[in-house]
Amino acid sequence: MFKHRIANGMLTAKLISEVLGTKLPGEGTIYMGQELKFLAPVYFGDTITATAEIIELIPEKNRVILSTTCTNQDGKVVLSGKATVMKQ
Amino acid sequence: MFKHRIANGMLTAKLISEVLGTKLPGEGTIYMGQELKFLAPVYFGDTITATAEIIELIPEKNRVILSTTCTNQDGKVVLSGKATVMKQ
Repeated sequence: MFKHRIANGMLTAKLISEVLGTKLPGEGTIYMGQELKFLAPVYFGDTITATAEIIELIPEKNRVILSTTCTNQDGKVVLSGKATVMKQ
Repeated sequence: MFKHRIANGMLTAKLISEVLGTKLPGEGTIYMGQELKFLAPVYFGDTITATAEIIELIPEKNRVILSTTCTNQDGKVVLSGKATVMKQ
């Protein structure tokens, strides 16, 4: 089905959790949920960039909803989804 | 917030992808999507068991929907969710 061996999608997803835990919202973030859609294969040697954008703030629950996207070196979206986190 | 240092939730989620790719549905599985709900913390030293149960088959699209659960050594569910995969 694929041209070459591909990387397990959860490895790509791991990059999202790194962004959430270190950049946005950053340290002290508690991961509550994540939706993942694997849209394109990641091949060995690809360079993947994970980005997160806040789409909703729920201050009364200390919750943040983020749109999360991973793109490869050609700008193709390989993973999209939504994260729900708690930020103290 | 937590008693001790906790493991990144995506490490627990990785166990689900191992089950899907090696057991059910097994080799040749293509990961299309995953919903994850992180329900309880995973502490260093915990033993986590990942299980998958087929909840829907869509033969005309070669799709399989599975309920995915990770429990700790005390039987507590630490992660629940749903996987969508394609099986050739």
